[in-house]
Amino acid sequence: MQGKFITFEGGEGTGKSTQIKLLAEYIKQKGKNTIITKEPGGTEVGQEIRRLLVCGDKDKFDALAEALLYFADRHVHLVQKIWPEIAKGTWVLSDRFADSTMAYQYYGYNKRLSKKIIKDLYKIAVGNFEPDLTIVLDLDPKIGLARSFNKAKTMDVKELRFEKRELEFHNNMRKGFLMIAKQEPKRCAVLDANKTIEELHSDIVKVVQERLGL
Amino acid sequence: MQGKFITFEGGEGTGKSTQIKLLAEYIKQKGKNTIITKEPGGTEVGQEIRRLLVCGDKDKFDALAEALLYFADRHVHLVQKIWPEIAKGTWVLSDRFADSTMAYQYYGYNKRLSKKIIKDLYKIAVGNFEPDLTIVLDLDPKIGLARSFNKAKTMDVKELRFEKRELEFHNNMRKGFLMIAKQEPKRCAVLDANKTIEELHSDIVKVVQERLGL
Repeated sequence: MQGKFITFEGGEGTGKSTQIKLLAEYIKQKGKNTIITKEPGGTEVGQEIRRLLVCGDKDKFDALAEALLYFADRHVHLVQKIWPEIAKGTWVLSDRFADSTMAYQYYGYNKRLSKKIIKDLYKIAVGNFEPDLTIVLDLDPKIGLARSFNKAKTMDVKELRFEKRELEFHNNMRKGFLMIAKQEPKRCAVLDANKTIEELHSDIVKVVQERLGL
Repeated sequence: MQGKFITFEGGEGTGKSTQIKLLAEYIKQKGKNTIITKEPGGTEVGQEIRRLLVCGDKDKFDALAEALLYFADRHVHLVQKIWPEIAKGTWVLSDRFADSTMAYQYYGYNKRLSKKIIKDLYKIAVGNFEPDLTIVLDLDPKIGLARSFNKAKTMDVKELRFEKRELEFHNNMRKGFLMIAKQEPKRCAVLDANKTIEELHSDIVKVVQERLGL
């Protein structure tokens, strides 16, 4: 039996990595194999692409170059990891997927890149495949960025390229995720991330039960 | 006055880098500013992408991932270097450009990637822009690879990913370059690279005189 593909989307500091671990625990308890992965950098080659994307000056390339690199990472991720795992019956949980590209490059950058280009790149790199479920963690960026900044103090400063961007960018991105979810309500579920870890986890489990019957 | 964009294409060991230097000398003598650049890796970011592309196992990603990375490199190359230089009046000479992607990924890999995907990526990353002149250096791969291998003995072994590929791949690629030139005779000129350095240089100068009036 085929596995499932669940993606987690949302801005910085919305709790994606914490919640993805808790959902993986839940899925294991239900007797399914599961793996956690992420974008960018879900494969060895992807790690190399990720370094290119997150390190260095934020203006080192434009939105289109970023999108091409993200879709290269995504294609490798699908071919080398996501598709083979799903074929084996694994429930694959990914911290970010294509909605992040749309939210960052189209909504975040205030349409510096056209929706058509991003959709064309999706068709080229991903085809007709899409997640079985996308969980959008929604949070005011002021709260999210503060959470993220506190965590980041212990990290390499080079990793902070996105966090340093202005609040407006993050507000636009948040609106973008909500817009995507509105356009694809069957695939996406928006959850309020301004809750305790336990409350949010139980909201996520409820969605997985309702939508995927687990 | 706008500059010009001249690309050099052809397989390994056809003498592209030698001939490009000689043509740059000729153009300088004619009183024009000129720069030599290359793909992949014509910019700082491009160098990072180039390392990804040429180092390591040749099966580390598939033809589509390669094409996405090449077009990311190409887009950055255009935006950060080629277009600004042409706007300043510079004659930009590039060792490889988009025809190499078509020759490698479509013809070389025996159509593992569709022509349509490569053309769609061109439209996304390059738009309607194209070289003023493309010089295709044509040579039997047996001769070219032998030349290239002798040169490579002194190079880092990691750089040899392409050279190690089988002869059939290079033969297909050669046919690809000839096919492209046949389809776009106004832009492309095919020259026999099985000549002395001086002879080939004077053939190239003749083409530049005829096509671009310099």
